[in-house]
Amino acid sequence: MKIGVLGTGRVGKSVGTKLVDLGHQVMMGARTADNPAATEWAGGLGDGANHGRFADAAGFGELVVNATSGAASLGALASAGAESLAGKVLIDIANPLDFSRGMPPTLTVANIDSLAEQIQRAFPDAKVVKALNTMNCEVMVQPALVPGSHDAFVCGDDAEAKATVAELLRSFGWPDENVIDLGDLTAARGLEMVLPLWVRLMSVLGTRHFNFHVAR
Amino acid sequence: MKIGVLGTGRVGKSVGTKLVDLGHQVMMGARTADNPAATEWAGGLGDGANHGRFADAAGFGELVVNATSGAASLGALASAGAESLAGKVLIDIANPLDFSRGMPPTLTVANIDSLAEQIQRAFPDAKVVKALNTMNCEVMVQPALVPGSHDAFVCGDDAEAKATVAELLRSFGWPDENVIDLGDLTAARGLEMVLPLWVRLMSVLGTRHFNFHVAR
Repeated sequence: MKIGVLGTGRVGKSVGTKLVDLGHQVMMGARTADNPAATEWAGGLGDGANHGRFADAAGFGELVVNATSGAASLGALASAGAESLAGKVLIDIANPLDFSRGMPPTLTVANIDSLAEQIQRAFPDAKVVKALNTMNCEVMVQPALVPGSHDAFVCGDDAEAKATVAELLRSFGWPDENVIDLGDLTAARGLEMVLPLWVRLMSVLGTRHFNFHVAR
Repeated sequence: MKIGVLGTGRVGKSVGTKLVDLGHQVMMGARTADNPAATEWAGGLGDGANHGRFADAAGFGELVVNATSGAASLGALASAGAESLAGKVLIDIANPLDFSRGMPPTLTVANIDSLAEQIQRAFPDAKVVKALNTMNCEVMVQPALVPGSHDAFVCGDDAEAKATVAELLRSFGWPDENVIDLGDLTAARGLEMVLPLWVRLMSVLGTRHFNFHVAR
């Protein structure tokens, strides 16, 4: 598949690299066409990896991944352009972390709204699926990094889009029984609001290689 | 131990009953001395169980449990009185659920503050420990209801108070390795903010008998 990955940080690189490894054609999108991180990333991965501006990557992808920082996501997607996103599955991995108050981060949106819903409202023709935001980016693409059973949550308003994302998660190594469909996109509020607990756990456990599991 | 349990709902009854079963002297506190739920609860449990007003129960307890509904907690604790709480461990199980917007509930406080911190600020001489709010009240006192390994989180500013709560959790059946100390009371933000995910999971899974586990 042709996939556009928006964002050049740890999440974008980790997910982008896994997608290339799986044989997809991946374009990493950045604010500028000569973004050094994107250039270096694509240069190291051969024919499957390319890079460009947000609009280039979104236009290229049959599926688009939002791996930008949450506070920058709406701007990045506006640069990508509504027409480049229309009709496509848009996997939103971003977290609306607000570092302006210092550490630990708070959220820019919470409780009665979520970043995923803001994105869906701004781009009503995209099929937004919230996924993978509740874990470290290495765990996202290599679930076996964390021992035992642990879970990946998805939510969104389009069932077919969620099925596409579930298939992608399967290819990342997630067993079906560990992919939990939480229903419509308002569930993204809960998924984004676990971040403060995640950040605290990272600090207390001294590792990013942990993940939530719903024991039942 | 003499323990005051504030609140006559499912959480207060479940925790209060377990404490009586464990041999503690428990007084359930309510707004009025003749609260029907508290009267019935105490009547069915023999000598170990009593009931009274919030102030009676808080004054009685060497340790006090806040099992009131979150939106009513500050009022209930004000009725209990600062002098009745001073110097005591106050286990805050409450969740600041706001049902005024309909279902599912939102939170009355989130992101940059928490109910537990509001309580600690209002009653600075109490030793507030946030605990058990991330799970169903039957699971709180019978962790084996949920199969496999799953966790109970605690946080608070007083290490000795947290040790007392950890000991109580042990008596409830929580193995030490499943009690995760998240540090100071600001971690309560993260613990209260998992409620929207919890509520959604209850709906999707069709059961309250599940719990979070931090796989690592």
